[in-house]
Amino acid sequence: MGRVTQRRKIHRFVLDGSPQALEHPVRFREDFLAVEEPLEVRLGHLSFSVTMRTPGDDFDLVAGFLVSEGVIWDAEQLISLRFCAGEDENGVQTFNVVEAQLRPDVVLPEIGRNVYTSSSCGICGTDSIEAVRKSSHFSPADDPLAIPVEVLASLPDRLREAQAVFDKTGGVHAAGLFRIHDDGEPELLCLREDVGRHNAVDKVVGWALREGLLPLRGTVLQVSGRASFELVQKAALAGIPVLAAVSAPSSLAVELAQDTGLTLVGFSRGTSLNVYAGSERVGVPATL
Amino acid sequence: MGRVTQRRKIHRFVLDGSPQALEHPVRFREDFLAVEEPLEVRLGHLSFSVTMRTPGDDFDLVAGFLVSEGVIWDAEQLISLRFCAGEDENGVQTFNVVEAQLRPDVVLPEIGRNVYTSSSCGICGTDSIEAVRKSSHFSPADDPLAIPVEVLASLPDRLREAQAVFDKTGGVHAAGLFRIHDDGEPELLCLREDVGRHNAVDKVVGWALREGLLPLRGTVLQVSGRASFELVQKAALAGIPVLAAVSAPSSLAVELAQDTGLTLVGFSRGTSLNVYAGSERVGVPATL
Repeated sequence: MGRVTQRRKIHRFVLDGSPQALEHPVRFREDFLAVEEPLEVRLGHLSFSVTMRTPGDDFDLVAGFLVSEGVIWDAEQLISLRFCAGEDENGVQTFNVVEAQLRPDVVLPEIGRNVYTSSSCGICGTDSIEAVRKSSHFSPADDPLAIPVEVLASLPDRLREAQAVFDKTGGVHAAGLFRIHDDGEPELLCLREDVGRHNAVDKVVGWALREGLLPLRGTVLQVSGRASFELVQKAALAGIPVLAAVSAPSSLAVELAQDTGLTLVGFSRGTSLNVYAGSERVGVPATL
Repeated sequence: MGRVTQRRKIHRFVLDGSPQALEHPVRFREDFLAVEEPLEVRLGHLSFSVTMRTPGDDFDLVAGFLVSEGVIWDAEQLISLRFCAGEDENGVQTFNVVEAQLRPDVVLPEIGRNVYTSSSCGICGTDSIEAVRKSSHFSPADDPLAIPVEVLASLPDRLREAQAVFDKTGGVHAAGLFRIHDDGEPELLCLREDVGRHNAVDKVVGWALREGLLPLRGTVLQVSGRASFELVQKAALAGIPVLAAVSAPSSLAVELAQDTGLTLVGFSRGTSLNVYAGSERVGVPATL
């Protein structure tokens, strides 16, 4: 769609004390920005959610979002996806609304978040994880995947090499799904980018759903940023046994990984990495 | 509350080829994690939203969230904030539900996001910004703040120096509010951290609301990560004239900054920075 990056004139200041910078501390030059636009997700004619995202792979994003919300887990539950045909005031089709048609037997979630409900209790007297956890059709717990730690450590570099957009904007997150073959070799199945970390993962999961690949047994999901609770939940709902992040995980991300039997890796930086849960998949007993 | 970081045993792999690493490639050691827990926001007894956040400054977070949603803009509109007294199954008070009591004349938003509504149109035929923009009580447009570019460039370092938690976890975002005095000197008014970028900003804005400081004229909000549309919106709703980010802004963030008269700075790295909108506040005409 050509809307992943946008060119724009900016003022660039350089203050490093160099002769050039002292003579011309500010330049008016062109820069590339990661595009961010709202996407409205509709179930039939009902509005379900509005997400800020980078346009592109929008059907994957919607499909993956529905998996992450626990609504669907099989391509056959998703009858169709289409862009709503609206135009803005200049007569331009916005491509910012996607309607999903679900099989009639799909149970819609009773309430979303950010909803007025007269919940008598809510999460008040509930354990933190139980309060926000979605029931999952799949479980990574029994996935026998074993992965050499050197292969795991190589995935961030492989992801970066595959990222075309990153060099242009410096402003997008990436998620890459790797199949680990029996000889330990990783194969990049799908790479998606977005201004939002969660969207990049939803796009990967939605791609896999539409390809009929769920549950994603024997795979590693490598992400460019941190590992939050929600990212672990998205991986678990798709049946992915290993989630690896370049930066830090949160406390609840680690707890959910332990609860669901998912291997959680953080600070994966090429020559070092931390394993926060499920270390047996990298050949180390849980307590060493 | 002592819940900002959590200690946990992890497996650390080092693969750098050093003699120590070759002898002991994996160690079982202690690490600090940024705590992430759900917070439910209630308006009276009605559930309004559930947010994943780092516990601490929760009243600031809720107050700032209500400002960011366009619900309130004055401390007097907020009658009280209190924790719901629920306990989990082990009898532990969770401190994960905050009830806000608003003045009766406060108009609540008709719908949140992630809501089933039978919107006949939604954002289908709407310009992207108009679709997601909240009406603001304040405008940064007429704020005459002028800031030397060297001072602006120094703010990320000042923010990092003030961050106590960052060194422990590497996993939290920070937002710092600086007052720029008439002589150009910056004064850090408030620093807040969170696993979520948006939460860190909401905590700062909520602090300011409760201190009676809105609109935040003559200030700069320095954030540790990227600048999304939502961060620009939060700053504009609080009347902050300058938002500076360490990393990249998105396209819609720049558009909204231009529309609202906010100065938007990105890639602020000490010896260089980019100005994407409102360059007149750093002494440069819009087209140089």
